[in-house]
Amino acid sequence: MADPATSPPLTRASVQAARALIAPYVHHTPTLTNRTLTRLASTPRTREELQRYPEWERVENPANPKLRLWFKCENLQRVGAFKVRGAFHALGRLLGEEGFERGRGVVTHSSGNHAQALSLAARTHGIPAYIVMPEISPPPKIAATRGYGAKVVFSGSTSVEREAVTAQVIEETGARLVPPYDHPDIVLGQGTLGLELQEDAARMMAEEEGEGEGRQDPEGGRCSFAAPVTKEDGDGAGGKGEGDDTAATGTKGKGKKKKAGLDAILAPCGGGGMLSGVALSCEGTGIRVFGCEPSFQGADDAKRGFESGTRVEAVSSLTVADGLRTPLGKVPWHVIYERKLVSGFYSVGEREICDALRLVLERFKMVVEPSAAVPLAVALYNEEFRRMVEREAGPEGWDLGVVFSGGNINLDVLGRLFGEPEGSK
Amino acid sequence: MADPATSPPLTRASVQAARALIAPYVHHTPTLTNRTLTRLASTPRTREELQRYPEWERVENPANPKLRLWFKCENLQRVGAFKVRGAFHALGRLLGEEGFERGRGVVTHSSGNHAQALSLAARTHGIPAYIVMPEISPPPKIAATRGYGAKVVFSGSTSVEREAVTAQVIEETGARLVPPYDHPDIVLGQGTLGLELQEDAARMMAEEEGEGEGRQDPEGGRCSFAAPVTKEDGDGAGGKGEGDDTAATGTKGKGKKKKAGLDAILAPCGGGGMLSGVALSCEGTGIRVFGCEPSFQGADDAKRGFESGTRVEAVSSLTVADGLRTPLGKVPWHVIYERKLVSGFYSVGEREICDALRLVLERFKMVVEPSAAVPLAVALYNEEFRRMVEREAGPEGWDLGVVFSGGNINLDVLGRLFGEPEGSK
Repeated sequence: MADPATSPPLTRASVQAARALIAPYVHHTPTLTNRTLTRLASTPRTREELQRYPEWERVENPANPKLRLWFKCENLQRVGAFKVRGAFHALGRLLGEEGFERGRGVVTHSSGNHAQALSLAARTHGIPAYIVMPEISPPPKIAATRGYGAKVVFSGSTSVEREAVTAQVIEETGARLVPPYDHPDIVLGQGTLGLELQEDAARMMAEEEGEGEGRQDPEGGRCSFAAPVTKEDGDGAGGKGEGDDTAATGTKGKGKKKKAGLDAILAPCGGGGMLSGVALSCEGTGIRVFGCEPSFQGADDAKRGFESGTRVEAVSSLTVADGLRTPLGKVPWHVIYERKLVSGFYSVGEREICDALRLVLERFKMVVEPSAAVPLAVALYNEEFRRMVEREAGPEGWDLGVVFSGGNINLDVLGRLFGEPEGSK
Repeated sequence: MADPATSPPLTRASVQAARALIAPYVHHTPTLTNRTLTRLASTPRTREELQRYPEWERVENPANPKLRLWFKCENLQRVGAFKVRGAFHALGRLLGEEGFERGRGVVTHSSGNHAQALSLAARTHGIPAYIVMPEISPPPKIAATRGYGAKVVFSGSTSVEREAVTAQVIEETGARLVPPYDHPDIVLGQGTLGLELQEDAARMMAEEEGEGEGRQDPEGGRCSFAAPVTKEDGDGAGGKGEGDDTAATGTKGKGKKKKAGLDAILAPCGGGGMLSGVALSCEGTGIRVFGCEPSFQGADDAKRGFESGTRVEAVSSLTVADGLRTPLGKVPWHVIYERKLVSGFYSVGEREICDALRLVLERFKMVVEPSAAVPLAVALYNEEFRRMVEREAGPEGWDLGVVFSGGNINLDVLGRLFGEPEGSK
């Protein structure tokens, strides 16, 4: 990796500089709204709904926050996840480093989205990439990584074994390590999605404010799908069934807000590279940033560390949100905790994650991976978060950015999760 | 229904008028591009790929067309399908009719997207809707229709039984029939998607032409996700695996085209209401329109009728593309065949449809229903269509509009179709 000492400072301005560096290589993904999900988020859970979730079944008075949701669709990003932002930024920085020998290439150990992102970035710049993966990795992941032109090197499946093989690759080839999250260049690259989300949401809100009732469709085709609809839509079938109101126009708040813009952002947190980058992108804007984690088998390590003041260094969880099984890295911890750029963490159970995932597939018609559904699960089901919003935002509510971090889910996994229709047994 | 004799003439201008009438109630859905799918469409099938499909396994020289695909995302439409366009238009016309008694409401027989579309339109205008559905309809469909406030009336499952119950509802309530496709008002409403697709694709092409290489991201957030990428992307894993390049910037043709705009549109054909509406929307533009059908168990009735000169009046097919099991209606037939506004039909088998559906889910990260994947299946796998494009378009190729008609698929159906990973047996 580039020597972290040579990295730009961890500031919003550095995120902006990163954006200029990677702009030719990554998609500016759309920010979308969805009326059904915004309405669900702004409706108190019923007793029956709460009883579905062990953590909330005893809640007496369900919270009643007003939330307008703005979804950042990194599932539509290249390689299907935000990881290309960090990979292209880290590689771009390496290429600008005096003494970097292109022919020696780059290496990482990952079997997930970062592996494919780095492979694409390396191929784009015409340099070799070595990806260390456990021998037991699913064949499609191996094939996809090779499809991007990377050389896959197998290792055992423990982190010690992977690191040993990585060290060996570095010794033999002179390749530079590009870690998945624990590096300033990665953090700054991932943070670029936060800039886009802030700007696009603010622009879409401003456009809504400028629109009269009953106007004709404007120039059209914008991602807000802005079509003013005169009546409120009810729910299709109490959260089930097909054919509800899918995607979606923005939601106009009743009271005029002072400024057009987001109040807060919910982002998933695994190693924390993206969450800390998004936090940097919001520094000085007044937009609050919260991390979202699965609680299953202790995958809420960042939350526990944040609340106890000591970073949790190891996690061993098999949560369905497989992108979030990683412990928080040191660089992210610095941004998140020591610099207090993240306001707090919320976690959700496996059932909340699967319910949110189902809603995104059925109502939003978007394919996202389970990890990407975790922030929406927090917005819909975490009563502590919802109570906090109700308290802090009051009747005006919040415009809440929600990061869909990626869309790489195998269809057979979907089949396993949802193959049996609800209540069919 | 409104007396067809009072309907506007079946012209492009009437489609434009319909658009103004329904604009406050429907989404202007986005037109999106996808680099991976465009590349696949512009690559000759390998022998191995062709051998997957009984119809094409003997093809000696696979066609080599150049196709740039533009997807009209009606899966993101209200109620998840284009059907709201026709429903809002038909109802809007009824409301403008002297003597229409709002309190008597509207009725249709349908268990699909039209039922929900009409229910939403009726509720929006505050009038009753009666939906005649077979007793054996899936409970989620019944619940979803009731969720829109409609009164569900059960019948037997044959068309004779459904029509008898519908006649009874009309007699008892005085409700007016709004048929799913065989009426000029429905045809004109559905055609509005064709206008949007033409305009948005032309605008996006013009924007691409105006863009220099290596520029920074423009105002951002547009649905083209326009980010110029300097190198060509290869395939992730030979058509499998996760994490390929998902959504997508437009594809710039090598040679400059004379005009920016679509050359042709592929639309699915069931009853033909949407196909004939799209054909009207293209009248006089030079854009050719083709119908796409499943071939399974004779569901290619429109193709057979078009080629023989006699409309096929009955279809009994259990194709996976369940929205396309309907025979072509008389009004659509008039537009499509008698007025020659559709240039031809192409059909695909069940395997082609499922393969195209898988690609949309895995690569485009969009949820579409099987019927909506039929035009893409034609573009990718129908060698006759591909050969025709190669011949007609030459090296310059075609800009091809592809209609994603809807996104209403139950997750348990997805589980059944894709639950077993390929090659796992």
